[in-house]
Amino acid sequence: MSVNITSPQNPRIKQLISLQKPRERKKTGTFLIEGIREISLAQQGGIEIVEMYLCDDLYQADQDYPIRLTDLSVFNITKDIFSKAAYRDGSGGVLAVAKTPEKTLNQLQEKTSPLYLVIEQVEKPGNIGAVLRTADAAGVDGLIICDPATDLFNPNIIRASLGCLFTVPTAVCTNDELLAFFSQNNIRSYATLPAASNIYSAESYQGAAAILLGAESTGLSDFWVKHADVRVKIPMAGKIDSLNISNAAAIFTFEALRQRNL
Amino acid sequence: MSVNITSPQNPRIKQLISLQKPRERKKTGTFLIEGIREISLAQQGGIEIVEMYLCDDLYQADQDYPIRLTDLSVFNITKDIFSKAAYRDGSGGVLAVAKTPEKTLNQLQEKTSPLYLVIEQVEKPGNIGAVLRTADAAGVDGLIICDPATDLFNPNIIRASLGCLFTVPTAVCTNDELLAFFSQNNIRSYATLPAASNIYSAESYQGAAAILLGAESTGLSDFWVKHADVRVKIPMAGKIDSLNISNAAAIFTFEALRQRNL
Repeated sequence: MSVNITSPQNPRIKQLISLQKPRERKKTGTFLIEGIREISLAQQGGIEIVEMYLCDDLYQADQDYPIRLTDLSVFNITKDIFSKAAYRDGSGGVLAVAKTPEKTLNQLQEKTSPLYLVIEQVEKPGNIGAVLRTADAAGVDGLIICDPATDLFNPNIIRASLGCLFTVPTAVCTNDELLAFFSQNNIRSYATLPAASNIYSAESYQGAAAILLGAESTGLSDFWVKHADVRVKIPMAGKIDSLNISNAAAIFTFEALRQRNL
Repeated sequence: MSVNITSPQNPRIKQLISLQKPRERKKTGTFLIEGIREISLAQQGGIEIVEMYLCDDLYQADQDYPIRLTDLSVFNITKDIFSKAAYRDGSGGVLAVAKTPEKTLNQLQEKTSPLYLVIEQVEKPGNIGAVLRTADAAGVDGLIICDPATDLFNPNIIRASLGCLFTVPTAVCTNDELLAFFSQNNIRSYATLPAASNIYSAESYQGAAAILLGAESTGLSDFWVKHADVRVKIPMAGKIDSLNISNAAAIFTFEALRQRNL
């Protein structure tokens, strides 16, 4: 059963647009997903979608990214309403409202010798999205976001991640919670610090390991300088001394994978 | 000697703004550099700056990035004019017009066992800028841009590169020219192809080597599928099968560096 909405003043449309704001997402316990691929990956990743808004003039089903329309409310909206509610172009005429899932450390699947990637206090949605793409490509067992400066269900994170927010196991926690988790699970933590004397590739990542990266501007906090098991650096040969965080994550994670697959 | 310009109608200001267009850059053989760091790195990299436009209300010298004002025309401009001519905020109140340098393969310095990074037909200035940052951090002997889809002196490339366009040796050429260059200099070429059967890290990069990457959407052209010495892939474990090009460049280049430093 689907319902037509033709007025942009419709309260559901207003509610839909309001979910672009962190406050509204928090209040309602829901968030917004835009785009065929993103919605398809969310459904495959077990995210519960409660409402779907389809614009028939724009929507074209994509075989690679099927969307399930059963067991939820579907509303047909006009092109005008869609362009008002959408936050980007070319996303395929579909918007969804989803239940915000819990993202605690306990929900990460137990594995033998897991490899985790950890980012601390990273703020820019574009950077978090890029790290999610790296985490997906590497197939890490989890991306852990410590003391986040941005709500994980920010539309710009979903967008920049190309939907990898839904393919990568994620957890959000405090530094103290993460330290306890490392201790309970015998996970060796590797802090990436420009001032470290050891080079990242000289260490072994064969066992249970977590690679920690800080924000581009500030790096990891003193907490991890103190509490990490190992401190390493990625050597920089250039004049600018800056790799963006997703590049640092990619270099480091793929070195760990290389060693694990030897 | 410096001259004040107070009218936005001044022909020099119009000319300055017009350099944001590829056509004008080509016609005049000059390009635009905005920002203290970018101009400082350009001067350090041997780029000839012919005119500098300073807004005293915004300009603050930066010890880390000194700018030389001798031997060129300096114009003082108002805040209004600056904000009209600048293409971004927070760049420090300074704009420069520079002579476009030649960027041929012959200008790359001769080295024993050089390591080159090559990108083919990459279009997005943001991606080229990000690869330049990676190339700077890795300290490669050159970034070679094959059959470029974008003018290298595009303001958005300079911006996204954080000025690394001026710290990394670069060359622009056709595929045929590059193949001849590889042959003349005994450089082994490694094409990154998703369909390759060999994994990048199983190959050796100890000798003269060039790592080739194609555009994100299309990959390397058939020319390199056919002519490269080695075809390799970066294994993808994820559901999205996509690393952005600067991440792929970072993973691959840092593996080559790791092997070279063993």
